[in-house]
Amino acid sequence: MSQQLRQRLFAELDALVLIDPHSHINPHEPASTTLADILGYHYYTELAHSAGMAKEQIEEAGLEPREKVRRLIAQLGPIDNTIQYSWFVEMAQSLLGYEKESVEASDADQLFDLAEAKMAAPDWAATVLRQSKIEAVFLTNDFDDPLEGFNTQVYIPCLRTDDLVFHLAKAEVRERLERAVGESVTSREDLGRAIGVLFQHFTAKGARACAISLPPDFTPAPVSAGRADVAIEAVLSKGLAASESDRKATSHWVFWKLAEFCAEFKLPFDLMIGVNRGVYAAGVHQGRDLYDSRVSLIQYRDLFNAFPQVTFPVSVLASVTNQELTSYAWIFPNVVTNGHWWYSNTPAYIEHDLAARLEAVPRTKQIGYYSDMYKLEFGLPKFAMYKRLLAKVLAERFVIDRNWSEERAVGFGRQVLRGNVESIFGIGES
Amino acid sequence: MSQQLRQRLFAELDALVLIDPHSHINPHEPASTTLADILGYHYYTELAHSAGMAKEQIEEAGLEPREKVRRLIAQLGPIDNTIQYSWFVEMAQSLLGYEKESVEASDADQLFDLAEAKMAAPDWAATVLRQSKIEAVFLTNDFDDPLEGFNTQVYIPCLRTDDLVFHLAKAEVRERLERAVGESVTSREDLGRAIGVLFQHFTAKGARACAISLPPDFTPAPVSAGRADVAIEAVLSKGLAASESDRKATSHWVFWKLAEFCAEFKLPFDLMIGVNRGVYAAGVHQGRDLYDSRVSLIQYRDLFNAFPQVTFPVSVLASVTNQELTSYAWIFPNVVTNGHWWYSNTPAYIEHDLAARLEAVPRTKQIGYYSDMYKLEFGLPKFAMYKRLLAKVLAERFVIDRNWSEERAVGFGRQVLRGNVESIFGIGES
Amino acid sequence: MSQQLRQRLFAELDALVLIDPHSHINPHEPASTTLADILGYHYYTELAHSAGMAKEQIEEAGLEPREKVRRLIAQLGPIDNTIQYSWFVEMAQSLLGYEKESVEASDADQLFDLAEAKMAAPDWAATVLRQSKIEAVFLTNDFDDPLEGFNTQVYIPCLRTDDLVFHLAKAEVRERLERAVGESVTSREDLGRAIGVLFQHFTAKGARACAISLPPDFTPAPVSAGRADVAIEAVLSKGLAASESDRKATSHWVFWKLAEFCAEFKLPFDLMIGVNRGVYAAGVHQGRDLYDSRVSLIQYRDLFNAFPQVTFPVSVLASVTNQELTSYAWIFPNVVTNGHWWYSNTPAYIEHDLAARLEAVPRTKQIGYYSDMYKLEFGLPKFAMYKRLLAKVLAERFVIDRNWSEERAVGFGRQVLRGNVESIFGIGES
Repeated sequence: MSQQLRQRLFAELDALVLIDPHSHINPHEPASTTLADILGYHYYTELAHSAGMAKEQIEEAGLEPREKVRRLIAQLGPIDNTIQYSWFVEMAQSLLGYEKESVEASDADQLFDLAEAKMAAPDWAATVLRQSKIEAVFLTNDFDDPLEGFNTQVYIPCLRTDDLVFHLAKAEVRERLERAVGESVTSREDLGRAIGVLFQHFTAKGARACAISLPPDFTPAPVSAGRADVAIEAVLSKGLAASESDRKATSHWVFWKLAEFCAEFKLPFDLMIGVNRGVYAAGVHQGRDLYDSRVSLIQYRDLFNAFPQVTFPVSVLASVTNQELTSYAWIFPNVVTNGHWWYSNTPAYIEHDLAARLEAVPRTKQIGYYSDMYKLEFGLPKFAMYKRLLAKVLAERFVIDRNWSEERAVGFGRQVLRGNVESIFGIGES
Repeated sequence: MSQQLRQRLFAELDALVLIDPHSHINPHEPASTTLADILGYHYYTELAHSAGMAKEQIEEAGLEPREKVRRLIAQLGPIDNTIQYSWFVEMAQSLLGYEKESVEASDADQLFDLAEAKMAAPDWAATVLRQSKIEAVFLTNDFDDPLEGFNTQVYIPCLRTDDLVFHLAKAEVRERLERAVGESVTSREDLGRAIGVLFQHFTAKGARACAISLPPDFTPAPVSAGRADVAIEAVLSKGLAASESDRKATSHWVFWKLAEFCAEFKLPFDLMIGVNRGVYAAGVHQGRDLYDSRVSLIQYRDLFNAFPQVTFPVSVLASVTNQELTSYAWIFPNVVTNGHWWYSNTPAYIEHDLAARLEAVPRTKQIGYYSDMYKLEFGLPKFAMYKRLLAKVLAERFVIDRNWSEERAVGFGRQVLRGNVESIFGIGES
Repeated sequence: MSQQLRQRLFAELDALVLIDPHSHINPHEPASTTLADILGYHYYTELAHSAGMAKEQIEEAGLEPREKVRRLIAQLGPIDNTIQYSWFVEMAQSLLGYEKESVEASDADQLFDLAEAKMAAPDWAATVLRQSKIEAVFLTNDFDDPLEGFNTQVYIPCLRTDDLVFHLAKAEVRERLERAVGESVTSREDLGRAIGVLFQHFTAKGARACAISLPPDFTPAPVSAGRADVAIEAVLSKGLAASESDRKATSHWVFWKLAEFCAEFKLPFDLMIGVNRGVYAAGVHQGRDLYDSRVSLIQYRDLFNAFPQVTFPVSVLASVTNQELTSYAWIFPNVVTNGHWWYSNTPAYIEHDLAARLEAVPRTKQIGYYSDMYKLEFGLPKFAMYKRLLAKVLAERFVIDRNWSEERAVGFGRQVLRGNVESIFGIGES
């Protein structure tokens, strides 16, 4: 009975057309061209590597897509239990017309050909979006992205700021910034002005969010103008040779400045909290980051208090931080729960975390899900996973446990899936 | 089948008459006089504020109760998913005779009138208690409460000690203490004697517990007499101008002294661990506190070892601390699990935390639930929520998973709900 | 329907014959001789003590087994809700032929006699293993264990190294080491050579793992030869009078050396992370340890990176660390999830933690369960508990939620229960 109920709720939720509020899509090549683009996704390469496949096998220079696919498919057996494997199979079935329940080494060539034929269609990206019932996708744009040559109604720009906050000491980042704004940047004033130019550029192109990922030990704090003058000048002139203290002060100042511009330009500031970069140094591309789950939103207390006019959609990397996120969103008007990120984007954690949010955070302040995808083909299976879990939690914890009508449960689900994305990011507003 | 089983267990548990072992009831005005007392509960004001309602709208000086209710009800839509909203509706249905499943702006006046009529009855508080099947309620009394003018068999005094431990440097607190004991307090000896007088007063009036809420970084430790002499004298003479170090030493000394008196007077010492006060400074009244979930019961190791004769009913604010609480109660004879506090008092966390306790902590050492309520009307829906979850966990994890008889499961539930409150707090003893 | 499905999966999993990859069995006395050996297990003594039984009652010198059993059984009432109590009853029913669902004081003598008769059989240990469907059991051997006089195919040696890492400053440990290797140990070189001798001895006797339990604040790090020379010489000459700094450096050096030898001898290195010893000083034997759940696998980052050729089966004490374990095993090829340890070895935590692992860690890298038992009689009920939970998670989260066939789910369960123990520890290899 509960399973049929879940099925009915899922069917209703699955009928919605969605906006994906966070992805890593390249709008110039949004969809895959071969199956190697799909299996090259770090979820497959890192899991295959973790299960014993040599990194050199995966990242060999000049490796042909077909051969890469053969190699990876031959190594999927040890990971065929994972939810990530199920995304791959569901994608192949739904978008490529693949019919089996599993993918064996002997299927590699056939599947590669199937994919190649489909992906060669000139409207493949549009087809994928339509079949995935996704009408627009947020991007993750470098701060110096010209944001040209694509439809920003479908591919919505988002200003990603990790480089500015954490890597300004690298000559290359400073130079990219100077080129982007067409001016030299050697002082605090220059830097502030340059960041302002970026915000003008991005919002003029329809950006709907500023975003950043943050390590577990980061604690935002304002920096006095005097201290910032010294620190920023040191960082901009000495680069990586600047002191740790000056680099930290610069990071803090830039972060705080971003929040000020988010206020001025009325952009939500997506905070993705908790990642340590490069923990497994010998890992495959994008398969090196992990975390320390000992992080607290109390670290963001001053920020949330200082910027009541800025909306902070917050993602946390570890499920053990989800209760804090739930509580902070319940108390702070400007804190919003945002999706299920990375290592928490698996069913057991989504279910646990989602249940806690649905029952304690105002319904207007929950962004249900984003795909985080690099290629459009992953939107369908990832959102499908989430919608099934949303249907499960609504069925078990609202319809059954709390006696809600199915209609009411579906209405709540719709808001979390779609309505809040529109209202929080101002989609549809000019 | 599982749902019918849950229903049967719930019916049995719901038939019990309970004692509520922790609340903030004012025994002189235990029940509400208008619906504004109900909707003024911080759970509604903070959630409405979080969802966008201006603090000024809620806390406007001189606001009439009817207008306050109109305003708040008009803002309940965005929080109608929350478990807190469901408490309100269940209370209105069960105690006020309200019949709809939701409360809309257009219902405000009718509901206000309905409440006003009911609450005007001279025996309203007794009616609420009877309908809620609650026969006694623990209070949270200031240390200088005269504890007079109410029936201490129904409203059981409890000595709340946050002010003594954390705010003794405030002149007002010291003065209240001096007035309460009728002597000046200027030294360690004075202070110790004064606290002893409070314990005598409270236990003479039937107090059944000493209680305190504690920030995440608090680590109880004994302080030598010499160090305490200096620190306490500084705090009592300089007040808030005393050094951080002296204030801390005083806090530690007073806390330890409380534990000593708990031993002497055979009072359980309720520890409510983990709250940071005033995190959201601009929040509504009582809607400003949050927490840092990075706290450990290892911080209480010396305390638990030093006072084997004192029972410590422990509440933790974050679900991530619940396993430690479970383990410490499993090992330390004097540690008892106590209810589901505040941000962990929502179904998903209660269910998870409760399951862990029921299967690993001796059945005699679990206090199932307390309401934490400010007005009697909340006892019914809060306990109902808990009893439903208790029935769910007993049904799924004991009757189904472990093949227990329903009778055995109900017996366990009864002990957790009522029996242990009596035995742990010595209710019924002289 | 879901219950019948669980039952079918359980029956399939329960048919397997297993290898238990971690226990504290004494191979010279693997099974119990009286029921006092069973009820003397710390799970019963510590819970009975926690529920109010005096330590002196339990640990009285010269206490006869029958009297000890009488006393403990008389105190089981307050813990008859616990999963540990259910192990006892299931053991008594399955292995001793006991027929009731509970054990009362009046049953003590009959049960004692029943046990005595069964345990007197000369092939009792073999009978227990056979009925428990366990064909081999890993041991926890002191580093100076001669490993003689037992069948190492059934009782598989495992080099336990806590003493070497954390207690080398004790004269008795150093002397045991010197006796074990037949040489004096006064320098870093001596110590390294001695440890090498231990590895030779253990692997020659068929050891399949090196193992250690670690406190929450331990962070492995290499130590330079120069620093180690000084530190080790100080520790070996001054013993407990050596400085904290020298003792720490010695611990770190020995730990790192163990990892080097694990690489050389191709032994997996079991890390059991998170225990604080002696937290409750007045507790019963083995009932004094607890933990601080604020621990992170980021502390093991350098170790995991430095020893890619060593497999680290990792156990964590607190469920809040399980997501990190899941993520680290998903990324690091040499990190493997290992069982459900101690305070996390209760159904609610196993279920939550297991679900997260099954869906995100390669299927080849999960060691489902170990018993941690001191006497063979506990293998049956502990593994039965785990198999029921495994069946539950596979039924609910794979067959129902993800549409897996039952056959596929059972295949996955078999691998986690048995196949991976063989492949990870090289059972069956010469």
